[in-house]
Amino acid sequence: MKLVTFQTSDNQTRAGWLNQNGVVDMHALSNGILPADMLSFIDDHERYFNLIQANSWQNAAPTYALDDVTLLAPLPNPRSFRDYIGFEQHLKNASSKFGHQIAPEWYEMPIFYFTNHQAIYGPGQDIPRPTGETRLDYELEMGCVIGKAGKNIGADQADDYIFGYTIFNDFTARAIQAREMKCNLGPAKGKDFANAIGPYIVTKDELESYRDETGRFTLRMTSRINGKTICDGNYNTVHYTFGQMIERASENHVSLYPGDILGSGTVGWGSLIETNFEAHRPFEPGDVIELEIDGLGILKNQIV
Amino acid sequence: MKLVTFQTSDNQTRAGWLNQNGVVDMHALSNGILPADMLSFIDDHERYFNLIQANSWQNAAPTYALDDVTLLAPLPNPRSFRDYIGFEQHLKNASSKFGHQIAPEWYEMPIFYFTNHQAIYGPGQDIPRPTGETRLDYELEMGCVIGKAGKNIGADQADDYIFGYTIFNDFTARAIQAREMKCNLGPAKGKDFANAIGPYIVTKDELESYRDETGRFTLRMTSRINGKTICDGNYNTVHYTFGQMIERASENHVSLYPGDILGSGTVGWGSLIETNFEAHRPFEPGDVIELEIDGLGILKNQIV
Repeated sequence: MKLVTFQTSDNQTRAGWLNQNGVVDMHALSNGILPADMLSFIDDHERYFNLIQANSWQNAAPTYALDDVTLLAPLPNPRSFRDYIGFEQHLKNASSKFGHQIAPEWYEMPIFYFTNHQAIYGPGQDIPRPTGETRLDYELEMGCVIGKAGKNIGADQADDYIFGYTIFNDFTARAIQAREMKCNLGPAKGKDFANAIGPYIVTKDELESYRDETGRFTLRMTSRINGKTICDGNYNTVHYTFGQMIERASENHVSLYPGDILGSGTVGWGSLIETNFEAHRPFEPGDVIELEIDGLGILKNQIV
Repeated sequence: MKLVTFQTSDNQTRAGWLNQNGVVDMHALSNGILPADMLSFIDDHERYFNLIQANSWQNAAPTYALDDVTLLAPLPNPRSFRDYIGFEQHLKNASSKFGHQIAPEWYEMPIFYFTNHQAIYGPGQDIPRPTGETRLDYELEMGCVIGKAGKNIGADQADDYIFGYTIFNDFTARAIQAREMKCNLGPAKGKDFANAIGPYIVTKDELESYRDETGRFTLRMTSRINGKTICDGNYNTVHYTFGQMIERASENHVSLYPGDILGSGTVGWGSLIETNFEAHRPFEPGDVIELEIDGLGILKNQIV
């Protein structure tokens, strides 16, 4: 299923799914049995999926035409947001840009930081350029949404804890980031202003057919700025799987919760800094950035 | 007021305040008008404080003797948790330990990272040592609890957005931290397993009399391990005020919310790594660490 959060023409925010070029309002369809918001749905999704199947609600006619609603971030309020460096090529490109080698430790464990889970943007939403920022950039990532609470989760059991996947654009203010990272605490203000996700959350069953023999998904990942293709990569080049990332996050009795999001890290060449902004100048107001991942749709935003 | 979250002998979790060696259950006292949890109280605290005053509830007799309840983290579920480096002396000590200079950028802006707001411990709770960690440490900090939503908040207006203060022990796994920080994303697994706060949240009015002419609070900050004093510092040595930290956090249209917490950073000498673990060896199971800050009480935890 392709799960969405949307706003109706009378400004109600509802959760539902895409169906036949329309949107099903799960709360309305079920006479209030299914919830009106995505986080509540994820919290109890096993029960809700059973109800959907038992009532054949997955075949229901759309409540609204797609043109009559506004899609929002599919999960507007994740409980937390970890972002990893999962792709070696991105790290190679970024490291050579800054004239240093990849730390050997990167090959020993998935590395992440906590980003701002309270600055979520959705498809079509305008992204404000931070004041004075001269090198605004994007990052093309895949996001993994946790579905079940747990800790000390082994990579081989991690799939049980995954709810689904979405596209993640990790907008980055490179000038702010470069200055603050001199102080060794990692990125904060350089990445805290806009985490865009969407357009929908694909439940994990829909990606099974894309798995290769290593367990990675073969999914083309592309970016376009003002219609021009900038990056053409594939998720199957990832070094660390989401299973390994979940294992790392939940080590030492650290709990993951439904509605937590993990970012895969940027696919190789999936940001402008990797080409010294030669593929495209830094964003200016009016620029339109589209991220596309096979099976996950297109996430489109304009800079303002 | 000294606001607490506590567990009753029949395992109810409630919010209230300390009073005459006892605890007032705000929900019970008010016949359900005041909420049963701290986050809900903070969300609407201006209205609730007016009700408390109008009904003279602040003078109510305790609902329970202190011995009959278990104090928990005063806010078990902060909405987010930023931790800063506010004290120059701590940074000097840590930098010289690692053989590098303080980056000039530190003097230009308050530097922070997002830590794990879902790993909160309270007073008296046991702190599990991460598996295999050989250099478990503490950090003596003050925490500031946000009371009102806002963005682009100037330092001079920031006091309006503060709800209160508490003690914060930023437990740190130095061995894990040293390895992961080689990869330049800052600390994550080194600091994500236990953020201890408490024993209560002091409302901001109670600290006004401690302010010096620079607006900083003169508050002695001490630590004791197994009864032996390790650090004896003062909050008035802080370089960046919470007002400046709030300004930084909320820059570029980034929203702060009620129940967000900001950590001051470690007071100079307020961690074991600053003396190369000569003041005390790294924590081992059974060690008891007490943090005390004038006006904020004592936060005591045992390592297991």
